[in-house]
Amino acid sequence: MATIVLYSMNRTAQTTARLCFFPYSTRGSIVDSRISFFHNTSVRWLTPLPGARWVPKATGVQRSALLVAGAAAAVVGFVASASHFQRAERATMITKTEETEISEKCKKFMSPPCTDVKVLQQKKEEMCTRMEMLIMETQAEFCGGGISCVLQDGKVFEKAGVNVSVVFGNLTEEAAKQMRSRGKVLRGKDGILPFCAMGVSSVIHPKNPHIPTVHFNYRYFEIEEEDGTKQWWFGGGTDLTPTYVNKEDGAHFHNSLKEACEKHHPKYYPDFKKWCDRYFYIRHRGETRGIGGIFFDDLDSPSQEEAFSFVRSCAQTVVPCYLPIVYKHLDDPFSPEEKDWQQVRRGRYVEFNLVYDRGVKFGLATPGSRIESILMSLPLTAKWEYMHEPPKGSQEADTLEVLRNPKEWV
Amino acid sequence: MATIVLYSMNRTAQTTARLCFFPYSTRGSIVDSRISFFHNTSVRWLTPLPGARWVPKATGVQRSALLVAGAAAAVVGFVASASHFQRAERATMITKTEETEISEKCKKFMSPPCTDVKVLQQKKEEMCTRMEMLIMETQAEFCGGGISCVLQDGKVFEKAGVNVSVVFGNLTEEAAKQMRSRGKVLRGKDGILPFCAMGVSSVIHPKNPHIPTVHFNYRYFEIEEEDGTKQWWFGGGTDLTPTYVNKEDGAHFHNSLKEACEKHHPKYYPDFKKWCDRYFYIRHRGETRGIGGIFFDDLDSPSQEEAFSFVRSCAQTVVPCYLPIVYKHLDDPFSPEEKDWQQVRRGRYVEFNLVYDRGVKFGLATPGSRIESILMSLPLTAKWEYMHEPPKGSQEADTLEVLRNPKEWV
Repeated sequence: MATIVLYSMNRTAQTTARLCFFPYSTRGSIVDSRISFFHNTSVRWLTPLPGARWVPKATGVQRSALLVAGAAAAVVGFVASASHFQRAERATMITKTEETEISEKCKKFMSPPCTDVKVLQQKKEEMCTRMEMLIMETQAEFCGGGISCVLQDGKVFEKAGVNVSVVFGNLTEEAAKQMRSRGKVLRGKDGILPFCAMGVSSVIHPKNPHIPTVHFNYRYFEIEEEDGTKQWWFGGGTDLTPTYVNKEDGAHFHNSLKEACEKHHPKYYPDFKKWCDRYFYIRHRGETRGIGGIFFDDLDSPSQEEAFSFVRSCAQTVVPCYLPIVYKHLDDPFSPEEKDWQQVRRGRYVEFNLVYDRGVKFGLATPGSRIESILMSLPLTAKWEYMHEPPKGSQEADTLEVLRNPKEWV
Repeated sequence: MATIVLYSMNRTAQTTARLCFFPYSTRGSIVDSRISFFHNTSVRWLTPLPGARWVPKATGVQRSALLVAGAAAAVVGFVASASHFQRAERATMITKTEETEISEKCKKFMSPPCTDVKVLQQKKEEMCTRMEMLIMETQAEFCGGGISCVLQDGKVFEKAGVNVSVVFGNLTEEAAKQMRSRGKVLRGKDGILPFCAMGVSSVIHPKNPHIPTVHFNYRYFEIEEEDGTKQWWFGGGTDLTPTYVNKEDGAHFHNSLKEACEKHHPKYYPDFKKWCDRYFYIRHRGETRGIGGIFFDDLDSPSQEEAFSFVRSCAQTVVPCYLPIVYKHLDDPFSPEEKDWQQVRRGRYVEFNLVYDRGVKFGLATPGSRIESILMSLPLTAKWEYMHEPPKGSQEADTLEVLRNPKEWV
């Protein structure tokens, strides 16, 4: 199961980000994904791609499998403003508790969940089910109740996507070996180690250079051992990439994340803020990609319940930490020079994603992976000017200064 | 000397391309480069950068050293059409024989050669001198007599650069070890292995989508062993990246290269054409970057003289194989849709260069390397549209078809 390799490839704490959101074609496993994708206003309702099909239960796999061969994903969106508003209305109705019946909840999602609803109902206590529901809710909230309200006139976002991915399968011996090499003690039954990996991932690139780009992803990984016990961990983060650094926005963004973190552990925000700055670092430029946020991985304590609760808090903070910034700058005027600087920064975004991002690198190196999902995060347009250097004292230079020396925002 | 590592890192025949054109800050060595850079019409005469300075002869290094720390390069160009024409006139006067006095030849270059003219005079028989003269001539011919004539109105090229780089130094033990691991038998005096590496490299991105992008580089590598004998090899190539495949252009381009190759060996063109298709392959897209050309490395036979002669033929073919295509399409009208397709293809160019190109990857991973030189090859602008797929039967689809199934052009 090639899907797993990244988790163990030259692994440092920072290297495992953004893996499980990308659907890979794997043998004898369930592979599926849902993508909400907005590009100007030309977006569509979710339709399954021709490659998706049901296949018989594979040997050694615990569940019946939806195999999505090669190019496997679905595209979701809004055909017109009318249906868009209807959906936005429905999405805001999603309750955040886990009390509501699963089938009821599913009605509010952007698409049916990846796993069959009946299976989810039967296993509703299991973390895989709860996490799948959380990622579907996060997608629905972000696309329905939040972002798409702004998207309606097609003037706000240049390119934006929200990707949901759920993968079930068996770890190969090689992958298991690599997992072990990073400290995981794994005992499979007859060498077979069933796993599940799932997550929600999003990148939003606005048109106005005064509205920052946001990226978030939240993911869950689980491996079942011989005796039926499960090893599990969470990872994720939310980070902001402004074209022009705005102190107020930065403080609002980081404060929102800090508040979400502090409900769970006083060290989470400071530790994960530092981790974020380290991870989103464009080494060859000596700059961070943006002003950071939080980033974490391998979260397997203090308990599964508490870790999930923390991840849920983070996921639920995505809309309140970003949307007010979007609204605030919605009508900010901007000059061609400011647009130009945005395009130069977009170039840096491309550099980070293609050169350093482990998820992208792994995805591109994995045969059968779905390129459009992996490169969804790239901006619509970008620019590389030779020897571009903002004049001293300019706002552009101030922004660079912040990116070169990550600061404390709260 | 970190500069050398690429030559031995996971080396396959294809992996060593485009190394020595990028200046790295190295200790106790001569590092220099010259870049001719055109960006619209805002281009300048060559001026040494502040970082460039003379430093005393370093221990273990055979020559006095020009150390260009960190950001080390010079920018060359044309301030105005008037001086541009003067220079173009001078450049066309460059004789191609090696008979002319070195000091005379140097007058026609875009900048003084990297090595001191007196040193070049003294060692004019040596391959390092002859290759340095060749790369300076190639740059001058391409910028002076060729390309810049077209550039004058600033409407033809979106971004273009011609980079010359010359590096002298000592191989580190690690680099020597890696060289050995790829089959080179090296015996240094007291462990010291002096080397020189030099080359000329260029990428030209035109504005009009009917004019293709061209890339070329020609390089030379030499290591001196204990007993004074030298190991040496050449590498290089020229390749074309059209937005729209044009059969006539492709045939002209490949025929020109084939002719240059056939003066030297009947197998050169077919072998190096295949090598080029293999090297410039965007694996995750299943496409080549363009329609290829030639690519070779480790050329150390049949003799140094003959290998140099072949490289010279290739370098001298750059202008005649590309310029007629530029002139032919200079006034081709194009639609916004065609410009859009060009931008999508530029995105693929960025993907290749950032994800696969060994020179870029190595450069970015080398501390102290000059990022602007390494990323000079990126287009001014590029685009990533989600799920972009040209309609069947369109010219765009025809182009994709050729990129997915490299064809024979001659």
